[in-house]
Amino acid sequence: MKNTIGNEITITLFGESHGPAIGCVLDGLPSGFAVDMEQLARDMDKRKAFGAVSTGRREADQVEILSGIKDGLTEGTPVAMLIRNTNVRRNDYDAIRYLARPSHADYTAEIRYRGFQDASGGGHFSGRLTAPLTAAGSVLRQMLFAKGIRIGTHIINLHGIEDDAFQEESLAETVDLLNSRQFPAISEKAAEKMIKEIEAAARNHDSVGGILETVIIGLEPGIGEPEFDSVESRLAQAMFSVPAVKGIEFGAGFGFADMYGSQANDRFTVADGRIRTVTNNNGGINGGISNGMPVLFRTAVKPTPSIGLKQETVNFKTKENSVIETGGRHDPAVIHRARAVVDAMTAFVIADMLASHHGRQWLGEKI
Amino acid sequence: MKNTIGNEITITLFGESHGPAIGCVLDGLPSGFAVDMEQLARDMDKRKAFGAVSTGRREADQVEILSGIKDGLTEGTPVAMLIRNTNVRRNDYDAIRYLARPSHADYTAEIRYRGFQDASGGGHFSGRLTAPLTAAGSVLRQMLFAKGIRIGTHIINLHGIEDDAFQEESLAETVDLLNSRQFPAISEKAAEKMIKEIEAAARNHDSVGGILETVIIGLEPGIGEPEFDSVESRLAQAMFSVPAVKGIEFGAGFGFADMYGSQANDRFTVADGRIRTVTNNNGGINGGISNGMPVLFRTAVKPTPSIGLKQETVNFKTKENSVIETGGRHDPAVIHRARAVVDAMTAFVIADMLASHHGRQWLGEKI
Amino acid sequence: MKNTIGNEITITLFGESHGPAIGCVLDGLPSGFAVDMEQLARDMDKRKAFGAVSTGRREADQVEILSGIKDGLTEGTPVAMLIRNTNVRRNDYDAIRYLARPSHADYTAEIRYRGFQDASGGGHFSGRLTAPLTAAGSVLRQMLFAKGIRIGTHIINLHGIEDDAFQEESLAETVDLLNSRQFPAISEKAAEKMIKEIEAAARNHDSVGGILETVIIGLEPGIGEPEFDSVESRLAQAMFSVPAVKGIEFGAGFGFADMYGSQANDRFTVADGRIRTVTNNNGGINGGISNGMPVLFRTAVKPTPSIGLKQETVNFKTKENSVIETGGRHDPAVIHRARAVVDAMTAFVIADMLASHHGRQWLGEKI
Amino acid sequence: MKNTIGNEITITLFGESHGPAIGCVLDGLPSGFAVDMEQLARDMDKRKAFGAVSTGRREADQVEILSGIKDGLTEGTPVAMLIRNTNVRRNDYDAIRYLARPSHADYTAEIRYRGFQDASGGGHFSGRLTAPLTAAGSVLRQMLFAKGIRIGTHIINLHGIEDDAFQEESLAETVDLLNSRQFPAISEKAAEKMIKEIEAAARNHDSVGGILETVIIGLEPGIGEPEFDSVESRLAQAMFSVPAVKGIEFGAGFGFADMYGSQANDRFTVADGRIRTVTNNNGGINGGISNGMPVLFRTAVKPTPSIGLKQETVNFKTKENSVIETGGRHDPAVIHRARAVVDAMTAFVIADMLASHHGRQWLGEKI
Repeated sequence: MKNTIGNEITITLFGESHGPAIGCVLDGLPSGFAVDMEQLARDMDKRKAFGAVSTGRREADQVEILSGIKDGLTEGTPVAMLIRNTNVRRNDYDAIRYLARPSHADYTAEIRYRGFQDASGGGHFSGRLTAPLTAAGSVLRQMLFAKGIRIGTHIINLHGIEDDAFQEESLAETVDLLNSRQFPAISEKAAEKMIKEIEAAARNHDSVGGILETVIIGLEPGIGEPEFDSVESRLAQAMFSVPAVKGIEFGAGFGFADMYGSQANDRFTVADGRIRTVTNNNGGINGGISNGMPVLFRTAVKPTPSIGLKQETVNFKTKENSVIETGGRHDPAVIHRARAVVDAMTAFVIADMLASHHGRQWLGEKI
Repeated sequence: MKNTIGNEITITLFGESHGPAIGCVLDGLPSGFAVDMEQLARDMDKRKAFGAVSTGRREADQVEILSGIKDGLTEGTPVAMLIRNTNVRRNDYDAIRYLARPSHADYTAEIRYRGFQDASGGGHFSGRLTAPLTAAGSVLRQMLFAKGIRIGTHIINLHGIEDDAFQEESLAETVDLLNSRQFPAISEKAAEKMIKEIEAAARNHDSVGGILETVIIGLEPGIGEPEFDSVESRLAQAMFSVPAVKGIEFGAGFGFADMYGSQANDRFTVADGRIRTVTNNNGGINGGISNGMPVLFRTAVKPTPSIGLKQETVNFKTKENSVIETGGRHDPAVIHRARAVVDAMTAFVIADMLASHHGRQWLGEKI
Repeated sequence: MKNTIGNEITITLFGESHGPAIGCVLDGLPSGFAVDMEQLARDMDKRKAFGAVSTGRREADQVEILSGIKDGLTEGTPVAMLIRNTNVRRNDYDAIRYLARPSHADYTAEIRYRGFQDASGGGHFSGRLTAPLTAAGSVLRQMLFAKGIRIGTHIINLHGIEDDAFQEESLAETVDLLNSRQFPAISEKAAEKMIKEIEAAARNHDSVGGILETVIIGLEPGIGEPEFDSVESRLAQAMFSVPAVKGIEFGAGFGFADMYGSQANDRFTVADGRIRTVTNNNGGINGGISNGMPVLFRTAVKPTPSIGLKQETVNFKTKENSVIETGGRHDPAVIHRARAVVDAMTAFVIADMLASHHGRQWLGEKI
Repeated sequence: MKNTIGNEITITLFGESHGPAIGCVLDGLPSGFAVDMEQLARDMDKRKAFGAVSTGRREADQVEILSGIKDGLTEGTPVAMLIRNTNVRRNDYDAIRYLARPSHADYTAEIRYRGFQDASGGGHFSGRLTAPLTAAGSVLRQMLFAKGIRIGTHIINLHGIEDDAFQEESLAETVDLLNSRQFPAISEKAAEKMIKEIEAAARNHDSVGGILETVIIGLEPGIGEPEFDSVESRLAQAMFSVPAVKGIEFGAGFGFADMYGSQANDRFTVADGRIRTVTNNNGGINGGISNGMPVLFRTAVKPTPSIGLKQETVNFKTKENSVIETGGRHDPAVIHRARAVVDAMTAFVIADMLASHHGRQWLGEKI
C-alpha cells in the first residue's frame, strides 16, 4: 500500500521536502468529534525544531484543513490536511545532487525512483513528512484521550544519559507531564544533561541518537489479533515508518535473553476485583492482544545522519569516490522531535484497532 | 486483515493446536516453479521438536498440498497446505481451562473471543501454527534462492551464551552452513554450550530465551518503500507474528544510542565498480529501501512461557487467585525452532516485495 | 488480493475442480454464534446439481470444518472449510487439453498461468469453486437472519420466460418461500415452464441463461460508503466473482435510460413515523449508502458455455483451427444453481459492511 | 478502504463540493513518465459543464500538482492533486438543509454521518468529486496510450436515442474520434438529436439519463484473476463509484438471457497467426481474464436527480412530509460528462492490473 496505512482508519501521506506542499488524508473517522485545533498546534509544536538542539530550518507548519472537518467537528468524510513548504532552499542541495549522503536515502531513492525523484533535502524521504503524520495523530490522540486512553513518550536514553523510569503508581501524571513538555524527559536533571549533550554534538558538527520509551495507558484488554495484526506487529510497522527508527522492543524486549522463563513470566493476580499481572515484562501484550496492563515499548532512534563534518562517500552518477560536506541545515538530534511522531503513530494504530473492534462510530462517542 | 498478510503474495493462516488440522493458503505465486518437496521437508524439520531441548509432543507435520501445485510445479493458483493434528491430547488442558498460564495468551484470548475459542494448548495461538508458515516460507525461500538470494539465521545469544558473529567475507558459506544445521549456531562450541544451557533449564522445569540474528544476502538495491511499506516495517510486522518474538532491531539497532552520527553513518565507497558501504550499521536499509548490502536484523525471543514449575496465577472465571502446574509437554526453549519460522517469514516479506517490484511472474523465471 | 475478498470479514478461496480438494478460509467472524449445520447443508443443496436440469456429475460436497467452529459455535478464529473432490474424472479432459472450449477460461488460463494450471474441468475456474463460497455464505446468512436481515433470489427471466415480480407487501414471505425451494421461481407455473425450457435445451445438447433478481430486506439505512466501497461497488465486485455472471443492475438499472428524472426520482415520504420512498427505482441505495428500503439488484447469467454440440475452436498449442465436442458432464443451465452463490456472496458483502460499521462482535450478538 | 481504491496503483479521494478544495492522491506510479498537462486539461474539459446541456455552475477546475511530478515527469512518489472550489454558493442550500432531495444522498448521508457532514451541494457525495478522479485517470490513460492501449466511451443510448455501434474494423479511429469530441457520440446526427433531447428536458426543468458504452483496445490477453479480482469485478467496483451509475454489463450482458449457449459462445479462430474469437459476446473477458479481444462494457447512467420541478419529499429533521423546489444549478443530463469519469476509472483499473502483472516500473517504460 506504499503511502497508505491502516484498515478502518487510514492515513495517506504525500509531499516532498522542497516541493509546494506536504500533507495527508486521514480517513475513516467517526463523525461529530470536536477537534481541538489548539491542541493540534501544541502537538505540532513538540515536533518542531527549537533552540540549539534543532535545525536552523524553521517551518511554520501551519496545517490547513481542506475537508472533513466543519465548524470544528469531524464530518466522517476524509480529512485532508495540507502544509505549505515555505522555507524552501532548493539550491542548498544542487551541489550534492549525486553525492550519497551517508546513512541517508539519497542513493536508495536514486535506485528506487531511477533518478526522477525530487532529491532536495531528502524529498519524499525527508523528516518533514512527519509533520502531517503528527497532525493526523493529534486528532486520533484526542479521540483516545476522550476514551480514557493516554499515550506518552520520553527519552529513556540519549547517548548514554538515562532518564528516570516510568513508575506504575504515577503513570498518568507522568504521561501528562511529558505531554506538557517540549523536551521529553521525566527527570529535569536528565533533560538538562541531554540538552547539553546535544548542544555539544552540535558544536562538533556531529549528532547523537537514543532510545524512546512509550507507554499507552487505559487500553482495554482483548484488542489485537493473534498473528499478523498483533498489537506488536501493527505498532512495529508504524514505528519503522518514522525516519531514524531502527529498533523496537516490547516490555523486557531484548532483555528477555537474560531471563529464565520463571523470571520472565508475568504472573496474574486479582487486585481490587480486576485481573492484572504483577510484573509487566510482556509490555501489556500476550499473544498479540492487549491484556489491560500498560502497553510499553521502546524505539531505537539513530543519530541524525546529516552532520556538518566532512564525510567520505561516492558520487553515484560517476561512480567515483568523493567527499561531502553538507551546507544544509541540520538537527544535531532528532529524537526529541521524533517523540511527537512516535506518539502520533501510536495513536493511529490504537485508534485503528479500536475502530475495527468497536465499529466506526465508537471513537466519536462520549463515554 | 487478521489472518492474512501480504500484498501480491499472501498467506492466510488457520487452525488450532488440538483441532482437526492446521494449514495455510499461499496465494500469488508465479506459475511453473519446481518446488523441491524434500527441501520443504528439511525446512520443516528445522522447526520440529527434537532431543531434550524440545517438547515431548512430536508431530509428523506431514504437509498435504490440496491445490496450486501439480506434478511438482506451481500452477499460479492458490496453494493450500494442510497439516493434520495427530498427536492431540485435549484432556491435558481441561483442568486448566480457566487458569491463565502466565505470559501465555489464555487470558487475552478469553477476552478477545469471549470464551468461545478452543483453548486447548493455546488453540489458534499455539506455536503449532508456525508449521504451515514454515512450509509456505520454504516455497518462497526456494524461489529466492533460485534468484541468488539467501537467508540465514543463527542464535547470536542464548541466555547470555554468544555465538560467533557473521563475517562479511564468508557470509554465503556461513548461511549455507546454518541452513544445513538443526541447531542454528555458527560456532560448534557455542552450540554445545547453548544446548547444555537448554538442557539445564529443562531439568529445572524452567526455560530460556535469546536473540536470533538474520541475514539476507543477494537482495538488489531499490526494494522497499519510504514509509509504511519500508523493508523494516514489513519485516517487523512479519516477525512479530512469530510467537515469543518481543523485539527487532536492524543493523546497529539499539546500539545506535551509544554512537555519534560520525560513527554511525555508513560511508559509501566504490569497490570493484559497485557502490557499497564500508560499514553496515543500517543493516542494508536506507530510508526503508534496500541498499544492496546484506540486510541484517536481530529478533528477541522470550523464554518459553510454558514451564513445569508451579506458578501463581488467576482463575479468570472465578476471578480468584490460584496456582498452576501445567501437565502438558513443553519446550525448555523455542528459539532454535523459531529460527525456521523467522527464516520463513523473512522469505515471505522479501518475495512479496519483489513480486510487487518486478511483477507476478518474475520469481518464477530462471535467471 | 486475488483469491481473498473483504475488509473485516474475509474469504480466501482455493482448489481445483479435479484436484484433491476445494475449500475456503472464512475469517473475521464474531465468536459464540451457533452455526446451524443442517441449514448449511440445505444451502449447499440449493447449489447442487439435480434432475435433468443439471450436470450428471454429482458431488457429495460434504463440508469438513477444520477450524474456527467448536461444539457448533464460532470461535472467532478463522473457519477453514474443506470439500474433498470425490467424483473426479481427470481423463475426461485429456483429449481436449489444448482445445479452447468457447466462452470458457481455458485459453485465458493458459496465457495467465503459462500452461502450468490444472486444466481439467476448468481447474481453479470451475463452477465447483462456488461450493465453498456457498458454505461460507450460509454461515454469514444465518448471522444476518438472526439480525432480521433476509436475502432471497429468484430467476426473473429464463431464456425469455418471466417469473412474477416481487411484491413489497409480501416480500418477507416470498423470500422465505424462495429459500425453501430448490428451483428459485416465485410462480410455480413459471418454474414449470423454465424447467421444461432447460430440459429442452438439454435434449438439444444446448444451454440457456437468464436473469436473477435478488432482494435484501431488513438492512438498516446508513450502511456503505460514498465512493469505492459503495453498496453497489461491493456487491458488484462480489457478483462478478460468480462464474457466468456478466451484468448487474440496481433498481431500475438499465431501465433508467427510458425515464425522465421526474419519473426516476424516488420521492421520500413518512409512513408510520418512518422515512421511506414511495418508489424504489434506486434499489434501496442512494449515494452508495443503504436508505432502508429493500436493496434490489439483478444479475445476468450467461448460458452455460459447456454444451454437447460440436463447436469450432482452436488448438492453442498448435495454433490451428480445430473442432471440439466435449465428452464431460454439463449443465444445460446454471442459473438455478448460481442463485445459491449469489445469495451467499450477497450475505458476505452485507455482513462485511455491517462488521465494519458496528464492530467485530455485533453480528454475533443477540438482538 | 472507504476513499482509497487499488492494489499497486491507488487513488485516495477527498473533498466536499462547497468546502475549500477537492483532490486526490495518486500513488504507485512508475517514475520518469512525461505527463502531458495539456492532455490532462483536455480530459478535464470533457468532464466540464458546457452549453445548455449542463449546469450553470462553472468551475475552472485548475489542477494544482502538490507533489510527485517534477519538471513534467513522474517521480514515482505520491502525486497529490488539488482543485480549489472557487464558485461556492453555500447559501443556495441552507433552505433545504433537512429536505431530502429525491434520489440524492442527502438522507443517507445524514444517517451515515449523523448530521455532521457538509451537506451543501451534496458535500462529499457531489459529482464534483469526479474532477480529481478525471485528473488522475488522465495520467494513467496517457501511460496506457503509450503502451498501445486505448480507451473510448460513447453514449449508445440517451433517453431512447441510439448512437451507431462500434465497428471492429474501425475501432481505433472511432476511439480517437470520440476522444476528440466534447459530446461523446459516434454519429453526428445522433449527437445532434441527443443534445436537443437534453435541451428539451432542461426547458421542462427535468433531466434524462442513458447508457454509456466503453471499449478498451490493445489490452494483452492474460490480465486479471479468476475470482474476486476479475477484470469484471474490478471494473464494476470502479464504475459504481461514479455517481449516477446504476448498472454495468459486459459483452452481451443482459442480452445473454435471450440466447442459447450455442449462440452465445464465442468460438475461437486463428487469424493472421493470432488467436481471437469470431464474436465478442463475452466482452473480451473469459473467466475474469482478458482474452485479447476488445474489452466492452456498458454502464447505465440514471437521469440527474436534481431537477427544477417541485417534488414531494420529507424533512428528515422534523420527519414531516414536505415539498422541495431546488434553487441550485443543475445538469439536465450528466451522462456526457460522466463519460470522462468512466474513461478515467477504466484507465485506473487497467493500469493497476498491469502494474500488478508486470511490476511497478512497466507502465513507465517505453515500448
